[in-house]
Amino acid sequence: MKHFTKQRMFTPGPTPLLPEALLQSVITPLNHRKDDFKSLLRDIQRDLRSVFKTKNDVLLLSCSGSGAMEAALTNLVAPGEKALIAVAGKFGERWLELAEKYGVRIVPIRISYGESFDPVQISETLAGDPEIGAVFLQALETSTGALMDVEKIGKLVKQRRPDAVLVVDAITALGTMPLETDAWGLDVVIGGSQKAFMLPPGLAMLSVSQNAWTRIERCARPRYYFDLLREREAQRGGQTAFTPSISLIQGLRSALALMLQDGIDRFTANAALQAGATRAAAAAWGVSLFPKRPGDAVTALVAPAGVEPSKIISIMRQKFGAMISGGQGSMKGKIIRIGHLGYFDFLETLGMIGCLELALSEAGAGVEIGSGSRAALEFYLNIARREP
Amino acid sequence: MKHFTKQRMFTPGPTPLLPEALLQSVITPLNHRKDDFKSLLRDIQRDLRSVFKTKNDVLLLSCSGSGAMEAALTNLVAPGEKALIAVAGKFGERWLELAEKYGVRIVPIRISYGESFDPVQISETLAGDPEIGAVFLQALETSTGALMDVEKIGKLVKQRRPDAVLVVDAITALGTMPLETDAWGLDVVIGGSQKAFMLPPGLAMLSVSQNAWTRIERCARPRYYFDLLREREAQRGGQTAFTPSISLIQGLRSALALMLQDGIDRFTANAALQAGATRAAAAAWGVSLFPKRPGDAVTALVAPAGVEPSKIISIMRQKFGAMISGGQGSMKGKIIRIGHLGYFDFLETLGMIGCLELALSEAGAGVEIGSGSRAALEFYLNIARREP
Repeated sequence: MKHFTKQRMFTPGPTPLLPEALLQSVITPLNHRKDDFKSLLRDIQRDLRSVFKTKNDVLLLSCSGSGAMEAALTNLVAPGEKALIAVAGKFGERWLELAEKYGVRIVPIRISYGESFDPVQISETLAGDPEIGAVFLQALETSTGALMDVEKIGKLVKQRRPDAVLVVDAITALGTMPLETDAWGLDVVIGGSQKAFMLPPGLAMLSVSQNAWTRIERCARPRYYFDLLREREAQRGGQTAFTPSISLIQGLRSALALMLQDGIDRFTANAALQAGATRAAAAAWGVSLFPKRPGDAVTALVAPAGVEPSKIISIMRQKFGAMISGGQGSMKGKIIRIGHLGYFDFLETLGMIGCLELALSEAGAGVEIGSGSRAALEFYLNIARREP
Repeated sequence: MKHFTKQRMFTPGPTPLLPEALLQSVITPLNHRKDDFKSLLRDIQRDLRSVFKTKNDVLLLSCSGSGAMEAALTNLVAPGEKALIAVAGKFGERWLELAEKYGVRIVPIRISYGESFDPVQISETLAGDPEIGAVFLQALETSTGALMDVEKIGKLVKQRRPDAVLVVDAITALGTMPLETDAWGLDVVIGGSQKAFMLPPGLAMLSVSQNAWTRIERCARPRYYFDLLREREAQRGGQTAFTPSISLIQGLRSALALMLQDGIDRFTANAALQAGATRAAAAAWGVSLFPKRPGDAVTALVAPAGVEPSKIISIMRQKFGAMISGGQGSMKGKIIRIGHLGYFDFLETLGMIGCLELALSEAGAGVEIGSGSRAALEFYLNIARREP
């Protein structure tokens, strides 16, 4: 067929890049040991606190999100100490792998892919074992799209075990859901540049509460590049301990400006519009959502019986230039995943929905042509009626 | 409503910019009096000949399309000489204005906005008046979306008056329709960077046949910046007569690479897909096409009774970030126009169609929600069945 396509990211990371942030990241030469970097870093720290809704330090680490996960674990838990690891999918399993590598005594809470944690179970487990010093979990499990009730978990943990440290991987969640670091009592919250921050990968953010600092200060374990105490000292002074990803930090200023332009709540609500329209379409097609309690960052859909997810993904890429994802871990070959993180708008979500309908149909799903688009348009109209 | 939009061009010029062309236009410092510019210009001349389908000179002029129109007229027609000016809309009126300013004796052929010329009328008029030395017309009248039968006009003119020069403003048409400069006998064909060439405005292209050069060589009229003989001499030597728009010329190389990647016919067919999908939606809405014989560069739609075009345009911009155009000249307030020139793909056309449906509905048109998207998807499937 005689046409061409533009390559577009609809994966739950990396995500569409913000052009003005990309330009900022290359346009001004900046040396990280000069005063203008200090002033840039201070602006960014202020804005990150607004995004994280915290008064805590928010440190930048030049690594992917997994590096910040490693930093959290190795700074908080010494060898032989106990940690509760909550596992609901591939990224929960990453916490497990890290804890195993670093000789942590693991108290696991495992639930099936697609499920969300029971906050009471987490707080009870913690209350029942005073040796557990830290809890590690995801705010939203990227591999399944399942949202966790971080507010309730945070509040129950603070109630039952105020000394324990709650570590939340919010890499996919940040910027796509209301997230109240201080009000919910989240000690460490982790974000990554390649998600709702609309930047290339390579920069992670990590907020650290006083409660967490106390534990980090007495945690005996060798660490170097990921030494958060050293980073705290440097970054409180407007510096970084090591050469940082300067260009990404320059881009981050522009990304934060967009995220905070009309308040972070408006920015996260944008993901809800894209997710809601996509799910309205799925309902019209009779295609099920995979997670019981889906968050707005990712829509994970169960492939209809007899339809190969890899075929849907390949048609989307080859015929429409749209990159979507398949399942990870035990969900490989069973689901497809679509990201709504960051820089998406309704026009392209509508276009993606129409193309997904054609791809589903070609891959063998019995979908009524036009039904998904109509449902997405009606979803928009319903919201517009409520919030003009 | 809590969401944001990306600004997108769906106007019939300027059009969406090609990112790799923009980067090329700024990344390498280039001096137009050095050898590497010569080699760039030679590559571009070769590729432009493929786009124009000609062995003629294709000159670059650093100006908008209107500058190239002026160059054509002032180089071909001396004061007091006669020219046939064919007028079907605002850009035909521009030929008239130019001819009046420069003391040309005008033989006008005027048709209503939305109509296309009768090739026989043009050739008969020409045959009946041997004093007419040149014919000026549009291949596609941007203000109405009407396509002219340039093939038939060209062939009839060559048959009846081989000495006359046929000048075709193809600024909007080039890259959106098959256009055979040599095979159809088109003496001068004009293009502009801000249309299907996917670049910012500021650069025009103009092909000149031997027949046209003969007339230009004997045309007595002062001209300086737009002296095509001086440009011919310079550009045959890999130079330009004056400082050219260097960055746009650098970008043009990338744009031409995309246009010729799978052959220019495939590139123009892409516009046909976008136009066809948009028109299928319009038919489903019961909204009429304005021109009798629409080209694929622009879809001009008659606003439904009681619906203000300016309201549709404003909703598209304010709520969905999509820029579309209204009518020009006598069509102001009566039609809306949507461009399909250059860098568009099906995903965003689908998204635009869904948003246009919402905008029409909000502006008071009785459209069935989802009907346009469904028609566009079915249009795609019909083409895909024919040309897999």
